[in-house]
Amino acid sequence: MTAPVIDLNSDLGEGFGAWTLGDDDALLDIVSSANVACGFHAGDPSIMRRVCGRAVERCVAIGAQVGYRDLAGFGRRAIAVDPAELTDEVLYQLGALDALAGVEGGRVSYLKPHGALYNTIVTDEAQAAAVVDAVRRYDAAMPVLGLPGSAFLRLAAEAGLTTVAEAFADRAYTVDGHLVPRRIPGSVLHDADLIADRCVRMVTTGTVASIEGTPVPVPARSICVHGDTPGAVAIARRVRERLVKAGVTVRRFTGPD
Amino acid sequence: MTAPVIDLNSDLGEGFGAWTLGDDDALLDIVSSANVACGFHAGDPSIMRRVCGRAVERCVAIGAQVGYRDLAGFGRRAIAVDPAELTDEVLYQLGALDALAGVEGGRVSYLKPHGALYNTIVTDEAQAAAVVDAVRRYDAAMPVLGLPGSAFLRLAAEAGLTTVAEAFADRAYTVDGHLVPRRIPGSVLHDADLIADRCVRMVTTGTVASIEGTPVPVPARSICVHGDTPGAVAIARRVRERLVKAGVTVRRFTGPD
Amino acid sequence: MTAPVIDLNSDLGEGFGAWTLGDDDALLDIVSSANVACGFHAGDPSIMRRVCGRAVERCVAIGAQVGYRDLAGFGRRAIAVDPAELTDEVLYQLGALDALAGVEGGRVSYLKPHGALYNTIVTDEAQAAAVVDAVRRYDAAMPVLGLPGSAFLRLAAEAGLTTVAEAFADRAYTVDGHLVPRRIPGSVLHDADLIADRCVRMVTTGTVASIEGTPVPVPARSICVHGDTPGAVAIARRVRERLVKAGVTVRRFTGPD
Amino acid sequence: MTAPVIDLNSDLGEGFGAWTLGDDDALLDIVSSANVACGFHAGDPSIMRRVCGRAVERCVAIGAQVGYRDLAGFGRRAIAVDPAELTDEVLYQLGALDALAGVEGGRVSYLKPHGALYNTIVTDEAQAAAVVDAVRRYDAAMPVLGLPGSAFLRLAAEAGLTTVAEAFADRAYTVDGHLVPRRIPGSVLHDADLIADRCVRMVTTGTVASIEGTPVPVPARSICVHGDTPGAVAIARRVRERLVKAGVTVRRFTGPD
Repeated sequence: MTAPVIDLNSDLGEGFGAWTLGDDDALLDIVSSANVACGFHAGDPSIMRRVCGRAVERCVAIGAQVGYRDLAGFGRRAIAVDPAELTDEVLYQLGALDALAGVEGGRVSYLKPHGALYNTIVTDEAQAAAVVDAVRRYDAAMPVLGLPGSAFLRLAAEAGLTTVAEAFADRAYTVDGHLVPRRIPGSVLHDADLIADRCVRMVTTGTVASIEGTPVPVPARSICVHGDTPGAVAIARRVRERLVKAGVTVRRFTGPD
Repeated sequence: MTAPVIDLNSDLGEGFGAWTLGDDDALLDIVSSANVACGFHAGDPSIMRRVCGRAVERCVAIGAQVGYRDLAGFGRRAIAVDPAELTDEVLYQLGALDALAGVEGGRVSYLKPHGALYNTIVTDEAQAAAVVDAVRRYDAAMPVLGLPGSAFLRLAAEAGLTTVAEAFADRAYTVDGHLVPRRIPGSVLHDADLIADRCVRMVTTGTVASIEGTPVPVPARSICVHGDTPGAVAIARRVRERLVKAGVTVRRFTGPD
Repeated sequence: MTAPVIDLNSDLGEGFGAWTLGDDDALLDIVSSANVACGFHAGDPSIMRRVCGRAVERCVAIGAQVGYRDLAGFGRRAIAVDPAELTDEVLYQLGALDALAGVEGGRVSYLKPHGALYNTIVTDEAQAAAVVDAVRRYDAAMPVLGLPGSAFLRLAAEAGLTTVAEAFADRAYTVDGHLVPRRIPGSVLHDADLIADRCVRMVTTGTVASIEGTPVPVPARSICVHGDTPGAVAIARRVRERLVKAGVTVRRFTGPD
Repeated sequence: MTAPVIDLNSDLGEGFGAWTLGDDDALLDIVSSANVACGFHAGDPSIMRRVCGRAVERCVAIGAQVGYRDLAGFGRRAIAVDPAELTDEVLYQLGALDALAGVEGGRVSYLKPHGALYNTIVTDEAQAAAVVDAVRRYDAAMPVLGLPGSAFLRLAAEAGLTTVAEAFADRAYTVDGHLVPRRIPGSVLHDADLIADRCVRMVTTGTVASIEGTPVPVPARSICVHGDTPGAVAIARRVRERLVKAGVTVRRFTGPD
């Protein structure tokens, strides 16, 4: 029997200039895939390069965490950008990160949208198609990481891209397998052991307990962990430890650079 | 006897969002090399892509016109940026443009610094070395276009890069072969026929009349023409016409994409 | 019998850095109220100050043309900004413009939202209330200029602000008095004489011919004219000339500075 | 005999969007004057408003900490901005902060330049005059806070502005009374007790021990403390405690709002 395998991904390089956010170095010892901010919602060229260099050292995959052009809102404000412009903005970010990854001996091996863009293209077909179009034109062999059931992953698959579904370590799920909205009490979990146990179960059984307690299928090749607070890093570390202890292999979903 | 050859280069894609600057389409029918702004001092992803697409159609070479991060100042304000950060900012711009050129079937085939960065690295060795370092790491085969005698071209050559010297069609030269500073009356020429004649002479004899009338050597594989006013486009067109009429071949200095 | 009175307003100061947009000087001889961009979607401090100085010279009222923080999209992209942040962003823009108007001997005497913000707060009550809150806190005596029937003007009136309704010189109206959406053929008028005649009729009769030909009431204390193309300036000039010839007084709706 | 009086000032509101920097709330319980970032190098409208509100509650003076337009460099990169444009950029920042202070019941009561602008106008007369011109035009009664002996304070005094000299709690001084450059070992002090003792001595005797041990006059109506690290806040708190214990009154140099 093959040992179960999972990828752990996290958002990294989300500082800008004098500002830092999260503990990139700690996360890089935990995750197998680094979603690196590309300068539009966070991330400046020097931060991007530094994270890429450290990711390459640790064989952590480098993903383009593309976002809306919105430093003031950290990419968390939905923007009604024209799809054709969005495609070009995604291409710009992809190329910029690839250049910085390249000089560090790596490359961009997948794409994951950030924040409001991530949420918008769960349902907005025009913007979803715009992101897909960027990836397809940039590198048709590049996988995209996103929410199972989203317009984004569906359109990406239809366009021939490899799609990778992710689950969220610290989020509650409805009985239908959707994320419980953040405004609902109990939507975000905080107990490290509980979170780690849920992740093990996701990987070994493909299910998780819904917010009502019933098991719900969660198809995921990757689990998203957070690192923007000291507590978050501790939770991420616990998740990895527990997975490894349960015999799960933590491994990136893309091949080596 | 071989026909003399010259490249004509011009700054393109220098609009941003709703704003336009210069007549890109007119220039693309005149020049053989397009210095495309990369988003830091001007140029947004959609403008960049559009210019690249039209350049590819016309076999015009695409160059990365990298600048300081300064939309408000159009890259014309010298900025004391840390050299290591400058290297990363140049890499970012190179990669971004290359992505947009790539989806249009082209590629970035040279680099030319813009505005205050261009001027600063005539003498500032630290910033000049930073730009050279970016090019060398990104693509050691990529030529750089700049001012003969500048620290930039000297350090680029020392680093093994191919350097391409340019002359300015509409600028007066001192008896030492330097540009007459803009604040001096007569430093900028406006007569299309005069400018075109000077360009022919530069290419066919390697010299130009200095502001004092004596001939001065101007080694140049490329001549920079402007396109930011209707008058400028007319001058650029006259330059090309006169060169062709004089038997000069207008040809990019880089190979085809 | 009192002569009819109307205000003419136009967007000004919409350049940024090296980029210009529209003919500010020509417009300032035509309009009675200048909607001055405040730096978030367009307008830099020096442009803002220059326009304010020339407006003061001509007794043209200075209005704060506030927009989303979106230089790349020229404020034309709807942004789901948090209402509390929007209030603060409007206050920031109001204060910035007021400082520059002040040193030129003027002051901000009204507010008109720009672009996507203007459109969003026709219906979005939360963002409309956020803009109203900013004005009320900044200067409860400051009038707001907007679309009749909009959530913005309704909430402004409920908050005790003076509201000023505007009509559009070059836009077709439905039989219900709404603007015909731009995607519909015939929604934007281009004939200067026709536009000028419609404006005279709006002012003298309070009605305009709808796109179906029937008269529709258009309550407006101000008419918006454009100036972003040479043709637009000519139309604006024709509108003013025709109004004056018809005995209409073109006068700002705010008192002198 | 009158008790000695000193102002403590610190940079506040230097976050941006999702990014924070320093502990504004802790500093607001220590200082008497808050240098509030105005959005060009740091500070967004909501952060600015929040800091102003809390400053008003504590009777802490609000100063405009104006900087170069440089979010990526945190205002630490010298920029060769045209003086006329610099004046307008300072006016813009002053007005923006004043609007946000105003809705919180406060006002901008002084100006202190930030970072590279602060350093540049120690010697650059053109940029110094540009900042002075902005203050003079905005409010000729507004004091400016800066480095004793700088071109900035000299030109401000010549223009009739009130000038306030500051000393630095944690910096070593040369025998001539200048700051020891940061690149020299020993230029920055880290021992809280030593720093606090030096501050007491500055206030009570008007002198401080130079880096060579000799006493050097340090004329200062204000002492600058830092708050960008937990250690810095602890030092600032120690300075205030020691001053109070020594009978010094910590009091803002501007009148109440």
